[in-house]
Amino acid sequence: MPMPSTLSAEVSLEIPFHDVDSMQIVWHGHYIKYFEIARTALMRLARMDAPDMARTGCGWPVVTCEVKYLRPLRYGQQVKVIATLEEFESRLAVGYVIRDAATGERLTKGRTVQLAVDMATGQVQFETPEPVAAAFRSALGLP
Amino acid sequence: MPMPSTLSAEVSLEIPFHDVDSMQIVWHGHYIKYFEIARTALMRLARMDAPDMARTGCGWPVVTCEVKYLRPLRYGQQVKVIATLEEFESRLAVGYVIRDAATGERLTKGRTVQLAVDMATGQVQFETPEPVAAAFRSALGLP
Amino acid sequence: MPMPSTLSAEVSLEIPFHDVDSMQIVWHGHYIKYFEIARTALMRLARMDAPDMARTGCGWPVVTCEVKYLRPLRYGQQVKVIATLEEFESRLAVGYVIRDAATGERLTKGRTVQLAVDMATGQVQFETPEPVAAAFRSALGLP
Amino acid sequence: MPMPSTLSAEVSLEIPFHDVDSMQIVWHGHYIKYFEIARTALMRLARMDAPDMARTGCGWPVVTCEVKYLRPLRYGQQVKVIATLEEFESRLAVGYVIRDAATGERLTKGRTVQLAVDMATGQVQFETPEPVAAAFRSALGLP
Repeated sequence: MPMPSTLSAEVSLEIPFHDVDSMQIVWHGHYIKYFEIARTALMRLARMDAPDMARTGCGWPVVTCEVKYLRPLRYGQQVKVIATLEEFESRLAVGYVIRDAATGERLTKGRTVQLAVDMATGQVQFETPEPVAAAFRSALGLP
Repeated sequence: MPMPSTLSAEVSLEIPFHDVDSMQIVWHGHYIKYFEIARTALMRLARMDAPDMARTGCGWPVVTCEVKYLRPLRYGQQVKVIATLEEFESRLAVGYVIRDAATGERLTKGRTVQLAVDMATGQVQFETPEPVAAAFRSALGLP
Repeated sequence: MPMPSTLSAEVSLEIPFHDVDSMQIVWHGHYIKYFEIARTALMRLARMDAPDMARTGCGWPVVTCEVKYLRPLRYGQQVKVIATLEEFESRLAVGYVIRDAATGERLTKGRTVQLAVDMATGQVQFETPEPVAAAFRSALGLP
Repeated sequence: MPMPSTLSAEVSLEIPFHDVDSMQIVWHGHYIKYFEIARTALMRLARMDAPDMARTGCGWPVVTCEVKYLRPLRYGQQVKVIATLEEFESRLAVGYVIRDAATGERLTKGRTVQLAVDMATGQVQFETPEPVAAAFRSALGLP
């Protein structure tokens, strides 16, 4: 039985008026929200939504975030945001692509990395806690 | 010795690019942030900043919020936001005025009302808890 | 043939992580975004989306905004936002209700009023320009 | 007379309540606003604020944005945001550092890159238009 090589989630969004700036394009900081909505969908595939993560006793702060803006997004545009799990063993790395829903054109690329932090001690955990790693392995169909 | 009849705080802000919409004016939802920054300054006059409030065992959710937009705000505009305590005995009511810093022209009016909620039980408290009321009386120079 | 007495649009939203504050509830300023998304759906029923409005030569700034927070919104909650046209002859007044999608419980109420402003002169128009009024009459099935 | 080797601007900010998430730290997307406020101060040193840039006939969309979150920011924290011009000949690259105002500790690093786009044709300009390059050379004390 083939195992999925990765885990990916896609969400559909429409660009709202309040995200558009005075240049008539989405202000560059708002993309982080779109990425987060897709990452939420991805985490749920592993049953590791924010409350599930909290139950592991760890926080998962974002430690790096990168965005490449290939094409501007505009008011009312229908887009798809795809989040893909890139790493989970020692940290969570998620890649993002935003595509125009109608044409499929790639509009934006991005990546976030998150580290586990023990909520009790505040210490960074350089290995992903077993319950989280197990959840991702299970979602990936890995042993 | 005269007692102040009210408690008021003023903050100076400059309108940032990321708050301006495609009509070249501040998007109407962002004003709530400006009000909050002035309310924070007001609460600090009574030593009742958010962490102080939390220590009372109550949360203070906003239950109503009203904004009257008299003149649009624009990129780079220097404004003053004045928050004034209107009620504190049974609920916190704060009034707001935004003025152009250069001309003094009144640009925006607003009001928020907050109720105390017991953090342990979730119950709304229809009387302001004594430590908070005392802090406001003290800041107002009331007995 | 009966004519609709009003015009109403409903959108479904899920509360994202980035709208939740340190009290674990949606920060009160974010509701204005939810209202706007529902108002957009309402305006489209009359084919009067933002670009259509712009073509009338008028801007439609929000002049008052009111929110009543009845119940807090929380992360991941599924809600419906209903926007209802309340006035359109001399100004646009839209009422809002947010309901829990599962229980139907009413969580939030609100209202915005918008006035037409002539984009060329900057003058407030105290009567709704005919193309816009006609669009609403048509959507309402009025003569 | 020595010429400055670079151009740098520093702004002081206080972390507002509405930027803090349910983990009690600033939500990672809000940092982009802090960077922008410092970049605005930087651009003004060269008399190249947003309206000045618009007068060149070019838009300056951000094409990449990177953030490294070294330490979390918390409610009420006083920070300094320093923006430094890194490149201006073929594109605008700006580096950012956020430091705790009290301790000087480095909390965040970042970088944005912007390209000129001709507003009339929509074409990317791979050389910075002369008026903008001249403004930066002048601010840098370069011939």
